[in-house]
Amino acid sequence: MTETRVTPAWIAVDWGTSNLRAWAMGGRGEILAEASSDEGMGKLTRDGFEPALLQLISPWLGTQPPVIACGMVGSRQGWCEAPYRAVPCTPLDPAAQATAPTTDPRLTVHIAPGLKQTNPPDVMRGEETQIAGALALMPGYDGVFCLPGTHSKWAHISAGEVVSFHTFMTGELFALLSGQSVLRHGMQGDGWDDAAFDAAVSDAISHPNRLSTRLFSLRAEGLIAGLSPDAARSRLSGLLIGLELAGSRPYWLGQRVTLIGAEKLSAAYARALAAQGIDAQRLSATDCTLAGLTSLAPQTEAAR
Amino acid sequence: MTETRVTPAWIAVDWGTSNLRAWAMGGRGEILAEASSDEGMGKLTRDGFEPALLQLISPWLGTQPPVIACGMVGSRQGWCEAPYRAVPCTPLDPAAQATAPTTDPRLTVHIAPGLKQTNPPDVMRGEETQIAGALALMPGYDGVFCLPGTHSKWAHISAGEVVSFHTFMTGELFALLSGQSVLRHGMQGDGWDDAAFDAAVSDAISHPNRLSTRLFSLRAEGLIAGLSPDAARSRLSGLLIGLELAGSRPYWLGQRVTLIGAEKLSAAYARALAAQGIDAQRLSATDCTLAGLTSLAPQTEAAR
Repeated sequence: MTETRVTPAWIAVDWGTSNLRAWAMGGRGEILAEASSDEGMGKLTRDGFEPALLQLISPWLGTQPPVIACGMVGSRQGWCEAPYRAVPCTPLDPAAQATAPTTDPRLTVHIAPGLKQTNPPDVMRGEETQIAGALALMPGYDGVFCLPGTHSKWAHISAGEVVSFHTFMTGELFALLSGQSVLRHGMQGDGWDDAAFDAAVSDAISHPNRLSTRLFSLRAEGLIAGLSPDAARSRLSGLLIGLELAGSRPYWLGQRVTLIGAEKLSAAYARALAAQGIDAQRLSATDCTLAGLTSLAPQTEAAR
Repeated sequence: MTETRVTPAWIAVDWGTSNLRAWAMGGRGEILAEASSDEGMGKLTRDGFEPALLQLISPWLGTQPPVIACGMVGSRQGWCEAPYRAVPCTPLDPAAQATAPTTDPRLTVHIAPGLKQTNPPDVMRGEETQIAGALALMPGYDGVFCLPGTHSKWAHISAGEVVSFHTFMTGELFALLSGQSVLRHGMQGDGWDDAAFDAAVSDAISHPNRLSTRLFSLRAEGLIAGLSPDAARSRLSGLLIGLELAGSRPYWLGQRVTLIGAEKLSAAYARALAAQGIDAQRLSATDCTLAGLTSLAPQTEAAR
């Protein structure tokens, strides 16, 4: 077995509630190596963060490259709190990073803060880095970013700043309802039904007030009319994404919209938006995360 | 220790997903004894029903009184399927009961069927018995019954028949969101805040489209503005009950409404309806269940 020595200029880390991902980055933004684990913030106590990170990246620490991290690792229950910055503001500020307490002398860890909004109250952690990355990939972008996920975000961007944003619990509601509610009995497998999805999106946008009765109908129709698991799952997804579109209308109606997210989920949102006459662009969430972290990396600053 | 011999004319059983309750009933509708356990349908396999029931009621079986049961015990996953009857129809039909297979010779168990509606698809099991009981307690009632709970039901009653009904997943959504979602972090304890509840009901009725962003705001306001757990829990309840009222408007607007449910929950619904100008009557769910089962009991027939 041959071991290639990895000597990154810096290390990018995306540390969320459920997962930890790290990339060894070269001086020109190239990825030299990557690693990941399921040691997310949610399962770690404060002194578990350093060992969890070392387990992934210690082969890369020969030249003591700095670590730039984003996500829930910077929350109050994380490694080290990086206090929220208040919108309107740029998504990231290199001067506002927190430095995590470390014992290994090879390790320096900077954590990007999230954003908060006072009225209506809202917060994000991690998405601000993706937004910064999207702005780096699309300089001068004015419009709206939608970041679908567990807690989907819609952010209005103007002149390089996040002006306002709204979070929707769409992904978490889908996980709870499809996995833990009475609806789970009719949703086995992972097939898909576009027509059922489309109809549900339209229904929820037109009649958001009927959401909780439409949800139960999925169960009832399975029991008395043989609704297929594929159709039930697609309709649940459509109802929840439709409810999100009904609530985020001021964010997309007549706006330039770009989706930042995982491919399959972004495709579902793009389809739902297309039915409303919105032709959304799409960016990969990982590309945006890396571009955002790169904007905080000292080497990149030097390379500019 | 003295043992009193209980010799009921019949035995009433309310057997739901989570609980099993039984009453030893006298010939004039009086309760001689009662017993309950947590051996709900949800945790029993088909051959577990008879032992679970015997464990509660075998001291009452000396004179072999018939058992009349309602609820999920009659579902496809229950003891013995009692196929749904289709609305419009009377809530109960003594001729349509299923008889469960039993091995103990002292035991005869009749199970009341639930109701189904084809369009929109909906089902109920157990609530039809409460509705029948409510009609027995309020003869000639025309109007609407609301049965708040895990799966809240709204039923339109005319000339002694259930004309149509709608189920809302309000209680299950509350349990999932307050107990298993990210919102659980800000909802400890069991205090209450009427003002927060009222405002949330009004908000959800006016803007049901904003539900999933309002939900996340509960978390965000806890993090950045110190929202109290009591206010957060009351507001969650208000948002979900408000969403239900937004979706059930044709059922209550200008209608005579009677709530059938547990006291605290019915009080919250009555408060929310009062803010919409509806003065709802209230009946106890247990009283209605027993009155409904009584209408199926042969002894009661004889006593008429």
